[in-house]
Amino acid sequence: MPKIVDHDQRRQEIVEVTWRFIAREGIEKLNLRDLAAAAGYSNGALKPYFPTRDALLEATFNFVAEATNKRVEAKAMGLRGAQAIEAFACEVLPLDELRINEARIAVHFWNLALAEPELAAANAATMDQWRTWLDRWLGQELGERHMQATFVRDSLINFLMGAQVSSVLDMAANSGQSLVDQLKYHLQMLNRIK
Amino acid sequence: MPKIVDHDQRRQEIVEVTWRFIAREGIEKLNLRDLAAAAGYSNGALKPYFPTRDALLEATFNFVAEATNKRVEAKAMGLRGAQAIEAFACEVLPLDELRINEARIAVHFWNLALAEPELAAANAATMDQWRTWLDRWLGQELGERHMQATFVRDSLINFLMGAQVSSVLDMAANSGQSLVDQLKYHLQMLNRIK
Repeated sequence: MPKIVDHDQRRQEIVEVTWRFIAREGIEKLNLRDLAAAAGYSNGALKPYFPTRDALLEATFNFVAEATNKRVEAKAMGLRGAQAIEAFACEVLPLDELRINEARIAVHFWNLALAEPELAAANAATMDQWRTWLDRWLGQELGERHMQATFVRDSLINFLMGAQVSSVLDMAANSGQSLVDQLKYHLQMLNRIK
Repeated sequence: MPKIVDHDQRRQEIVEVTWRFIAREGIEKLNLRDLAAAAGYSNGALKPYFPTRDALLEATFNFVAEATNKRVEAKAMGLRGAQAIEAFACEVLPLDELRINEARIAVHFWNLALAEPELAAANAATMDQWRTWLDRWLGQELGERHMQATFVRDSLINFLMGAQVSSVLDMAANSGQSLVDQLKYHLQMLNRIK
């Protein structure tokens, strides 16, 4: 009797193994053969799920973005205004090993997205989601004035993007405590423009 | 009679051709053969200057970082305080085609630096230079309080790093005008904590 395999579940398992592999070994070392070995699959067993390395990478990047956004939804969705913004930013900032690994993957991802329109579109979709959230929370905090203050929203997003890079390449000046202090500064500024 | 070739000048020429090649074609397409052709050299003529692709990439990244820093020195060095910070940030922000190309190279560079300690060290050295400058200018602006306010300095640097990414991957929300507005917001925040 053939084994019953849940296709989606196996895809998910492969993606989770992949992102841990990239975080540990770096993306350059990623090939489907080593990955199959790491996941305990025979060579070739990955092909029905991910025919190419790029297909696997795209699924992996989407997985990481979704994981971040699910944490945001869990933490921020019961909150309003500046409290929601703080909860959101804390889930994006690389404050622990999981999120530092996510930051490492983000840097790899941006590099590939420069040459791959599908990856660039996936990134743009995540940024649109972030802008939608921030517009709602900034509206709760600032009222109608937030409509003119897109620079508040976009500079916060750029700060979060830069923190991804600096947490993995410029760690000495960007410890978890330093990133939290930088975020608090952003939130204080928000309070001062009210 | 053999031609007299200035070794440093030719290295410099090769690096300049390389960075334009990367900005136009992307780093994945860079190989020494195509590059020699683009530079008008015979295949093999690059080897005495750059024995490996990585050696050429490292020199190219250093060239871009130095070009940025030379512009900063030219524009900001006669200024003080917030004016110097603004001039510095305007040379880093991707506000024209040259600087958008530099941003593209920066994203490639960070990706490689995750796996190459020499490149990570080169990045850290640039960040140290930026911190030294900002400490001086923030000291002029804020007086002794700037010693406690490293989060002002580091959040500005993270904003500039994030702007490199967003200017090439999330352009719609990060036009030149938007980035200038975001910078002005940072400078206003500085003014409000005085």
